[in-house]
Amino acid sequence: MEVNRINMQSDNRDPDRPAHPGIFLTREAGKSDHQPAGRSVDFPVSVVLPAGGTGERTGLQTPKQFCSFLGRPLISYTIQAFERVSWIQSIVVVVAKESMDLMMDIAQRFQHGKVRAVPGGSTRHRSICNGVLALGEGEEGRPKVVIIHDAVRPFVEEDFLYKIVMAAKEQGAAGAIRPLVSTVIATTSEGYLDHSLERAKYRASEMPQGFTYDVIHQAYQRCSESDFEFGTECLHLALQYCGTNAKLIQGPPTLWKVTYKRDLAAAESIIKETLSRSACVVTGGSAEAVTLAGALQKAFGALNMELDLIPDLMGENAKYLLTGSNFIQVSVSHSCLSEVEAILTDLEAANRALLHPLVVICVYLSGSDELSVSGRVAEPATIMDLASAAKLRNILLYGIQLHQSKDAERWEKSVLRAAEITSALIRERSPALVGQLLQA
Amino acid sequence: MEVNRINMQSDNRDPDRPAHPGIFLTREAGKSDHQPAGRSVDFPVSVVLPAGGTGERTGLQTPKQFCSFLGRPLISYTIQAFERVSWIQSIVVVVAKESMDLMMDIAQRFQHGKVRAVPGGSTRHRSICNGVLALGEGEEGRPKVVIIHDAVRPFVEEDFLYKIVMAAKEQGAAGAIRPLVSTVIATTSEGYLDHSLERAKYRASEMPQGFTYDVIHQAYQRCSESDFEFGTECLHLALQYCGTNAKLIQGPPTLWKVTYKRDLAAAESIIKETLSRSACVVTGGSAEAVTLAGALQKAFGALNMELDLIPDLMGENAKYLLTGSNFIQVSVSHSCLSEVEAILTDLEAANRALLHPLVVICVYLSGSDELSVSGRVAEPATIMDLASAAKLRNILLYGIQLHQSKDAERWEKSVLRAAEITSALIRERSPALVGQLLQA
Repeated sequence: MEVNRINMQSDNRDPDRPAHPGIFLTREAGKSDHQPAGRSVDFPVSVVLPAGGTGERTGLQTPKQFCSFLGRPLISYTIQAFERVSWIQSIVVVVAKESMDLMMDIAQRFQHGKVRAVPGGSTRHRSICNGVLALGEGEEGRPKVVIIHDAVRPFVEEDFLYKIVMAAKEQGAAGAIRPLVSTVIATTSEGYLDHSLERAKYRASEMPQGFTYDVIHQAYQRCSESDFEFGTECLHLALQYCGTNAKLIQGPPTLWKVTYKRDLAAAESIIKETLSRSACVVTGGSAEAVTLAGALQKAFGALNMELDLIPDLMGENAKYLLTGSNFIQVSVSHSCLSEVEAILTDLEAANRALLHPLVVICVYLSGSDELSVSGRVAEPATIMDLASAAKLRNILLYGIQLHQSKDAERWEKSVLRAAEITSALIRERSPALVGQLLQA
Repeated sequence: MEVNRINMQSDNRDPDRPAHPGIFLTREAGKSDHQPAGRSVDFPVSVVLPAGGTGERTGLQTPKQFCSFLGRPLISYTIQAFERVSWIQSIVVVVAKESMDLMMDIAQRFQHGKVRAVPGGSTRHRSICNGVLALGEGEEGRPKVVIIHDAVRPFVEEDFLYKIVMAAKEQGAAGAIRPLVSTVIATTSEGYLDHSLERAKYRASEMPQGFTYDVIHQAYQRCSESDFEFGTECLHLALQYCGTNAKLIQGPPTLWKVTYKRDLAAAESIIKETLSRSACVVTGGSAEAVTLAGALQKAFGALNMELDLIPDLMGENAKYLLTGSNFIQVSVSHSCLSEVEAILTDLEAANRALLHPLVVICVYLSGSDELSVSGRVAEPATIMDLASAAKLRNILLYGIQLHQSKDAERWEKSVLRAAEITSALIRERSPALVGQLLQA
């Protein structure tokens, strides 16, 4: 069997790269190093990720696992979910022959060091079987437990994988289930209602599933051509050919499968929301800038986004460069483009925009009570130039000019508008609007 | 039974209001008056819309049918889907007692003239039964066919409703089905796999369903307390108590139910996409403006959005005021705020922003090869003031200043950026960015 190991670039093992790049789902900035207590796995676990689907149901030309949002294909999000689990050794992605190059390119571009790609078979079971056999031939030796998952379920979490793996080790097989969303009915051959099933007795079988290597390997050795051709359910093969009754574990709703085009929008919105929970406000330390940042922070309270105020990104605060997804540089006395340039350089050095776009916003206080024409323009060519260069490195830079006013009501309105604009820019992450200097 | 008819404001029957306000799903601007040939229904049809759910699964405090996107609650989108069908007489929405005021307010605010609200019962079947009884007491007399739908399935289409209604009239009952997305499995009482069902023999039962009034009324007269308490499937009651085998009809995937928070994001993205398929470019008729509009149109080709170029919104072109969702005013010689003001006035007169936010963008050519400070600012206070007023009427106004250049490459880049910004503003419909003058 043809097995292609992804050749990683030499900068892949950069010690500055965080072990778990980027926040994901419930992990918040600054808390991503939290590990569930006593939850380490002391036997080898690997993953088979069948990704050969054609994605007919999305109504898109590209198979859905290769559709991108926020500049990255869906399958990379799924791979990331496994790569961040320290006790997972390797991930075999099974793709259609014609997608091998694309898959290799994705793995290299997003530095997925645990991934191997193998070509799929003509059916789902043949593809999974290829993946299992490839694991047996891997350098690491046979894993004790194999997780089988879908490339189009990007939101699987470590806690749940742990449960599946432990149950699989104990029982031979384990699988995720969910309550049925709709009533299931049996139809007559003429298309009429025959009977409806009692919903409480049945469950939807979902992914991930886990098997000891021996059980899944044996099941595929023994099963029939007809199983290979028409079957879909690995748990069923384990039962039929190894006598293994899988342990069923209820999973969270986030296990859902990206099936239709609308699901891609839903997945994008989940990622965007995760990236928009907090932002880091860099003040430079001056009293006026701290006051302004405090006013913004207050306005942000109503917008359901947390702001961390720091004077700079040095020393202890350098950790924000490794965890934050959104940076707001505040300045009261001058355009803050030089500070912003330093942030961009630091983020690039930390390779932080590899997996998702980062947002950097320069909030700049204009010096006049009235709209000042000269003050308002604040080096537009420069911010646009900086932004165009940053965009190539997946960092989205915007500017906001805040108009000072001695009229308290007008000032409050400006601060609120600045907070609303900032919040919208962070949530929407629009590449088309980079380099704009917005007015608050 | 308490029945509240919504008192509509006198302007409700404004003859200028389009019969089908707003485009919806596959209906495109200018084509919304298309009716399926030979598809009129010559008997009375009404709808029961149970909307008493608490929405626990969305993870939101507000029940999901009352969650808003683009400024309007989900249930209003569902009601709109039925109101635009000419042969549907009336819609009874069944809501929890504590939500009656909210529902009345929604119906009044969005001018849902076919809607009555009735209080629900303690279970789904009691609520639907209340709705059916309320229909029997309505001014119009008993309908021949009753459609039962979910408040949280906003994308039901006329063609499919027609199929359900005709089958229900003929067979007594009819229901939508969908193929199963997951394998359905039976579990042992200890949580192990017992067996998996053969997927091909079963279907998911979805909504809408249709019944003759007599069948659904009789089913509820005869069914047991236990059915009222624990049952969920109306088709099952029709079978058990009236001997009616429902006709099952496969529906489109758009029938899906908004269940989780992510589904709200998916629904919003569908509506946004529908609203963003085309835009109307008003040139004022000058040759230079037409040339500029043509350049924009060419750049838009790559962005998958159609532009219609028209000189003004008079005469024949006034139809765009009744169908378009996005208007781009182009000007080469002066700020186009006076033309924009006229568009805003016309849109308001046509009551066009009632059901979704409209976008108006002023694209203005600056007169200089270099960034002109005075030219660049183009009455910023005025566009912000206009935009703030328009936002209150659900119209989102933005400005784009395009920088003229004799350098062909630079000019092409500016036009492309203007197109990208325009496209992003239309797709994102961000209220926070109204009144901004963006630079291209």
